[in-house]
Amino acid sequence: MRYTDINGCIFTQIQNKMNEVLLSALNNRYATKKFDATKKIPIETVDALIEAIRLTPTSYGLQLMKVVLVQDQALREALVSHAFGQRQIADASHLLILCREKEANASHINDYIENIADTRSIHVDNLIGFKNMMHNTVLKMTPSEQEDWMKKQVYIALGNLLTSCAVLGVDACPMEGFMPAAFDNVLGLQDMNLASVLVIPIGYRAEDDKNATIKKVRRPLPEFLVKI
Amino acid sequence: MRYTDINGCIFTQIQNKMNEVLLSALNNRYATKKFDATKKIPIETVDALIEAIRLTPTSYGLQLMKVVLVQDQALREALVSHAFGQRQIADASHLLILCREKEANASHINDYIENIADTRSIHVDNLIGFKNMMHNTVLKMTPSEQEDWMKKQVYIALGNLLTSCAVLGVDACPMEGFMPAAFDNVLGLQDMNLASVLVIPIGYRAEDDKNATIKKVRRPLPEFLVKI
Repeated sequence: MRYTDINGCIFTQIQNKMNEVLLSALNNRYATKKFDATKKIPIETVDALIEAIRLTPTSYGLQLMKVVLVQDQALREALVSHAFGQRQIADASHLLILCREKEANASHINDYIENIADTRSIHVDNLIGFKNMMHNTVLKMTPSEQEDWMKKQVYIALGNLLTSCAVLGVDACPMEGFMPAAFDNVLGLQDMNLASVLVIPIGYRAEDDKNATIKKVRRPLPEFLVKI
Repeated sequence: MRYTDINGCIFTQIQNKMNEVLLSALNNRYATKKFDATKKIPIETVDALIEAIRLTPTSYGLQLMKVVLVQDQALREALVSHAFGQRQIADASHLLILCREKEANASHINDYIENIADTRSIHVDNLIGFKNMMHNTVLKMTPSEQEDWMKKQVYIALGNLLTSCAVLGVDACPMEGFMPAAFDNVLGLQDMNLASVLVIPIGYRAEDDKNATIKKVRRPLPEFLVKI
């Protein structure tokens, strides 16, 4: 995926083609209002999308989030009424809920430090400075500050997921419009120390989804980009 | 970019190859600590990345954000000291600042409604319900709620940008660790009604960046994914 080190003509062409493919994928994506309930995403692709989310960079690398894959169709039907009747919750091929941890605590930091030590074969003593720094920032936040901070990290995962879906030709409908407390209750998330942040049905657009063909509205480039 | 409608063997192979290419790109990306200051991203690719950001989905589609491309090298050097001495600010090929609007007001909503009407050739009167809904939510938020809400949308753009960079073979270093007030001051952002949220130098890794080769640390899949 790096064509830029070599300035030969073929590589420039490949780079330009990649740019074109990416922008074509991003232009093709949209918030899918109606999914084709008969079309299922291949399991290998669902796995790849979940792995893509897991690879999302987060603040300090702490990843205070989890992905919930709701497979129980009765539960998915039960969630529709807590998301203003949006049928995508039940009709899409798969339903993902991006969750944050209910709170960030010392045990998350310890687990992370041990994970770094294991993964990179180093001693935890060499990570004491990093560990203390996280203690002094993350554990000093108020509950409300922690919540906001963790939510923002989940939004990075959302941006990554939506672009990953676009590149893999999968449709999605990111939703902030749902009742988190009801979702947490129906899915039993509180017992897992989780809180729902974003709901993302993924699958394939229905042929008659009108939203698929209406023009995308964006701020014009001169109003969006500032060069200094 | 949609291979899934046809279940022939070749298409399954293409889909699986796309999954592999995406995950390879995401595994290859990392927070670049040292850029090669001599390597420049082709302008077509910079333009593509800015266009990718512009295509980011946001709440209601309002896009209360802008991208600042800092081209003045003296300004980039001046910003280093306001980002804890991180040289990537000055050394990377290009420097992007993702900004939010200072506040969300009725004029943003009006401009957006007019943009929808123009883009889709419909009359603004047909958008009155949508307009009122945005008035009743966005303009009822406190300044602090507006700020949090706008910031979260900027984090979607970050996730999109980092994945887009990965797919195009461009390295990046997302930064929350900088002094926003100082950045706003140096770049004169307040006069543009903007506030800096995230700083992202982009370019190509230096050959001796040790961070390029250390193992990525992530929560193991069984701890990250919950199936219900």
